[in-house]
Amino acid sequence: MIKTVEWTDEGVRMIDQRLLPTEEKYLMLRSCEEVADAIKQMVVRGAPAIGVSAAMGLALGTKQAVGTTVADLEDDFSYFCDLMSRTRPTAVNLFWAIERMRDRFRRAKAETDDTDAVKLALVDEARKIFEEDIASNRALGRFGGELLADNSTVLTHCNAGALATAGDYGTALGVIRGARDAGKRIAVIADETRPFLQGARLTAWELDKDEIPVTIITDNMAGHVMKQGKVDAVVVGADRIAANGDTANKIGTYMVAVLAREHGIPFYVAAPISTIDLSIPTGESIPIEERDAREVTHIREQRLAPEGVAVHNPAFDVTPNALIAAIITDKGVARPPYTTSLQSMFKE
Amino acid sequence: MIKTVEWTDEGVRMIDQRLLPTEEKYLMLRSCEEVADAIKQMVVRGAPAIGVSAAMGLALGTKQAVGTTVADLEDDFSYFCDLMSRTRPTAVNLFWAIERMRDRFRRAKAETDDTDAVKLALVDEARKIFEEDIASNRALGRFGGELLADNSTVLTHCNAGALATAGDYGTALGVIRGARDAGKRIAVIADETRPFLQGARLTAWELDKDEIPVTIITDNMAGHVMKQGKVDAVVVGADRIAANGDTANKIGTYMVAVLAREHGIPFYVAAPISTIDLSIPTGESIPIEERDAREVTHIREQRLAPEGVAVHNPAFDVTPNALIAAIITDKGVARPPYTTSLQSMFKE
Repeated sequence: MIKTVEWTDEGVRMIDQRLLPTEEKYLMLRSCEEVADAIKQMVVRGAPAIGVSAAMGLALGTKQAVGTTVADLEDDFSYFCDLMSRTRPTAVNLFWAIERMRDRFRRAKAETDDTDAVKLALVDEARKIFEEDIASNRALGRFGGELLADNSTVLTHCNAGALATAGDYGTALGVIRGARDAGKRIAVIADETRPFLQGARLTAWELDKDEIPVTIITDNMAGHVMKQGKVDAVVVGADRIAANGDTANKIGTYMVAVLAREHGIPFYVAAPISTIDLSIPTGESIPIEERDAREVTHIREQRLAPEGVAVHNPAFDVTPNALIAAIITDKGVARPPYTTSLQSMFKE
Repeated sequence: MIKTVEWTDEGVRMIDQRLLPTEEKYLMLRSCEEVADAIKQMVVRGAPAIGVSAAMGLALGTKQAVGTTVADLEDDFSYFCDLMSRTRPTAVNLFWAIERMRDRFRRAKAETDDTDAVKLALVDEARKIFEEDIASNRALGRFGGELLADNSTVLTHCNAGALATAGDYGTALGVIRGARDAGKRIAVIADETRPFLQGARLTAWELDKDEIPVTIITDNMAGHVMKQGKVDAVVVGADRIAANGDTANKIGTYMVAVLAREHGIPFYVAAPISTIDLSIPTGESIPIEERDAREVTHIREQRLAPEGVAVHNPAFDVTPNALIAAIITDKGVARPPYTTSLQSMFKE
C-alpha cells in the first residue's frame, strides 16, 4: 500500500512527490511550518492529501505549543490555521480540514481546560480525517467501479490516485482500482499533465506498482487517441466542486472534458464529499491559483524556454457541469441536475 | 533575418534546432547522408524547411559524386533520393522536393551529357526551391495578415515560423508577421507543444527576437485561455493537406481545432501549396509518424516517467476540414468547400 502521508510520534512523514519516479524519498516534517511549506512546494499535492496533511500539520503544531492554558494554545492554533490557509487557494479540502480542526478545538475547549487533553483531541481528529479519507475512497471506488465496463480503457488527467489522498486507493484511480477489484480488466491512458507532470511521474508510477496497464501520452495527444476510438471513459479527480457541479481540477481537465463530449465518451469526476463546496453556487467563484512561471520554463535545472519570455501558469481550470456525465462520491453517484443530486449526498 | 538552412560552397549550413533556445549553434553538413540524418534527428524540422533541406542534401550528394557519366551520376542520385525519402513520412514537402529534384535531373539529362552541367542544374534547383520558399511565405503572410484584426491575440501550436521554413517569415508566424508589417498590433499565445517543445523553444525564441509579444502556455491550458476570451484567432502550419482540406500537423493541432470551434474562434491553417497533396483524397490516408518513446519520457538526460512504462508518441494528428475556417496559401486564401478551392490554387 502506498503511504502518501502518515502521522508518527516524531512528526508528519510524507513521500516527496517532487522526486518521483526517479527517487522514492520520505521526509519527516517536524513542525506545522514545515508541513505548510511542503504543501506550498508540492511535496504533497492532490486535494484530499492536502486536507489530511493540513490537519496533521495543525495537530503537530498545537502538540508542540508551550502555552500553559487553553487560551494560550488557542492563540497558537489560530496562528497555525491562518498559516495553513495561505498555502494553496483552490482545493477546498484544505479549508474543509482546517474548519473541521477548528470545530474540534472549540468542542475540546468547551469540555476541558487541560491543554494535553486538547492536544490529544486534535491529534485524534487528524488521524480520524486520515482514516476516513482511506475509507471514503474505498467506498467511492466501489460506486465508480460499477460505471466502468470490463475490458475498457480509461483516460485520466493529472494524478488523483493514492498519492493525491491519504494513500491506498485514491479517487479517480480509486474508481479504476474499484473496477479492478470487482474483477474487471481496465487499462489506463495517463495524460502526462504539464507542467508538474503528475500523470507521467505519479499516476504511471503508482499504476505500474499496482500492475494496472498504463500508457503515457502528452496532454496534446488526448484528442487524437479519442478520435482513434481508444478511450471508453474519462475519470478525473477534483479540487473543488461548486453546488451546481462545476468542477475545478488540474489545468487541462476542461480541455479533456470538451474532447470527451466531442467523441461521445462519458466524462466522470471522482471526489469525496469533502471536495464539494455547497457555499459556492457556480464554478465562476472558485479561486484559481497562478503558480511560478519557472514550473513551465524549467524541468528541474533544465531551461526549456528563452530567458525572460512571458508565461501563463494557472494551476487549475473549471469544467462546466454540462460536460460531466456523473460525479462519483463516497456517498454515491450524483447525476445531473447536480444542484439537487449533490445536496442529497450530504443528507445521510 | 533568421537563417534556418543555407546553401554554401562548403556544404549545407543549418541551425541546430534541438539546442535552441539555450544554445545558438550552426552545423555544417558536408554530405547528403549528414543532411538526411539531420532531418531524421530533427536538427531541422517543419514541413517547408524539410523540403528545402532535402533538396539541398540531394544537390550536395550529387555534386560530390565521382561518376564520370550522367548514368553513373543518376545511380548515385537515385540512391540519395531513396535515402532522403525514408527520413520522415508525414510532411509531403519532403516528397514534393525530391520529386522536383528528380524532374530537374530528368530534364538536365535530356539536355546534356556533361556531369558538371547536371550537378550545377541540381544546385540551382535547390537554391531556387529555397528562394521560392521565402517568397511563398511572404505572399502567404500578406494574404493571411488581412484575416487578422488590429489588437488581436493569436494562439499558435508548434513552430510554423522562420525555423520551420527556409527562414525569414514562416507560415503561421508568416501570417502574424504579415499582419504586423501591415501595421497591426498582434500578440501571440504559444502552446509549448510537447514532447519536442517547438512552441516554448522555437516559436517563443523567434518571436522574442522579432519583438512580437509572446506568452507561453502548456498545451493543456489552450481550452482555459480560450474560455477566458483571451484568443481571437488560431493560426497553425501544416505537414500535409489532403485534397478535401483535412490537415495533418503537429500532434495536438486537432485538439486545438476542436477547442477553437467550441469557443467560436476561427481556426486557420497556413501553408504553401507545396504542402497540399491532391493525390490524397482525405486525411485518413496520411501516414502518421510514431517517434521514439524517449522524446516523451525524457527531457535531454532528465527522466520524467518510470522506467519501462508504455508510451504512445504519434508526431502528428489530422484535423478534419470541417474545423478549418480557411487555408491560407501563397496563392490566396482557400475557403470551404476545399475540394474545389484547393484545386483552384494550382490553376495559375
